[in-house]
Amino acid sequence: MPTRGDHQILRAREGIALVLRAGQRLRITNTHGGQVVDTWALARADPSEYLSMEHTRTSLGKLVPAVGDHLYSSRRRALLTLVEDTSPGAHDTLIAACDPERYRLLGAEGYHASCAENFQRALSRHGIDAPRLPAPLNLFMHVRWDEGGRLEFLASPALAGDYVTLEALIDVTVALSACPMDLNPINAGGPHDVELEILGAA
Amino acid sequence: MPTRGDHQILRAREGIALVLRAGQRLRITNTHGGQVVDTWALARADPSEYLSMEHTRTSLGKLVPAVGDHLYSSRRRALLTLVEDTSPGAHDTLIAACDPERYRLLGAEGYHASCAENFQRALSRHGIDAPRLPAPLNLFMHVRWDEGGRLEFLASPALAGDYVTLEALIDVTVALSACPMDLNPINAGGPHDVELEILGAA
Repeated sequence: MPTRGDHQILRAREGIALVLRAGQRLRITNTHGGQVVDTWALARADPSEYLSMEHTRTSLGKLVPAVGDHLYSSRRRALLTLVEDTSPGAHDTLIAACDPERYRLLGAEGYHASCAENFQRALSRHGIDAPRLPAPLNLFMHVRWDEGGRLEFLASPALAGDYVTLEALIDVTVALSACPMDLNPINAGGPHDVELEILGAA
Repeated sequence: MPTRGDHQILRAREGIALVLRAGQRLRITNTHGGQVVDTWALARADPSEYLSMEHTRTSLGKLVPAVGDHLYSSRRRALLTLVEDTSPGAHDTLIAACDPERYRLLGAEGYHASCAENFQRALSRHGIDAPRLPAPLNLFMHVRWDEGGRLEFLASPALAGDYVTLEALIDVTVALSACPMDLNPINAGGPHDVELEILGAA
């Protein structure tokens, strides 16, 4: 993957996995604005323990985490803390990662990159036989709900340069995908590259 | 499990798995009212394909299914249809199944039955090595969201005799748990037994 100083570029439509040691932070910068970043985390000690959206919603008592909130695992352990967020705070815990079937149903012809495949491939490059695909934390994704529970997919309101920083509470493998969706408005004219930066000593 | 004519009693705090052939219907009756029933389904042909709350929300574009809605699998296939619902329609797709750690965190001392264990055991009695616990469809569970995304756990509004009927679109194994929760208000004074009835030829 290309690097630029301490920053790594995660190319539009691609995925990556990286290791965060306890205490390290990962900053995800929406370089061009409007880009959704599907995000997963697995415990290093046992990758069957994964960041779980349903456990996070249950522990927080809310649909969307905000600064100061922990993000919880399938075993109800805090894996990460959302420590900084300069974006408008639209993130999603409700929607499944896009996958080849999603694009087929949306009318795509031929091959289309997807977050589900990016997840599997990124982990496999780390020698991790990925578990069943967990529901992702869709950073910068704006899904609006109404009183009746109807959901609407909106363009990401993240501006160029907005970033989110996650701090690891235990050693985790984080997988990220610069969502390749171009058949609904979520990526606001993208997909585009994003930038990643690991802060703190390994 | 005790049976009474065509009806089966699912005891409070217990779980069961049963096979529904394509076209068969399963009626789940809230015999005493107020009881949450955690519900899962796995494709018979390949139990790694499971009823997925995140795929169901994505396909329906809403938080809670209603009569006429399909319920979708991890491969975006319609597995079940919600064909009847005489309850007020409060069901939940957001909250993780209760598990031993949930009860420990809520202050329970000693052993406490849980939906997660009921799921594993019920499937294991069918010779199915259960996959990682999927997020359940929490029938009759009333979780209220507000505009800001805050979630509130309320007592189930299901009245005695209210029922939900699910129709299988393909052969599935359905697992159900009469939720043992007694440390928050969701079961409205329960837990209580519920009744199950399979309609249609095997």
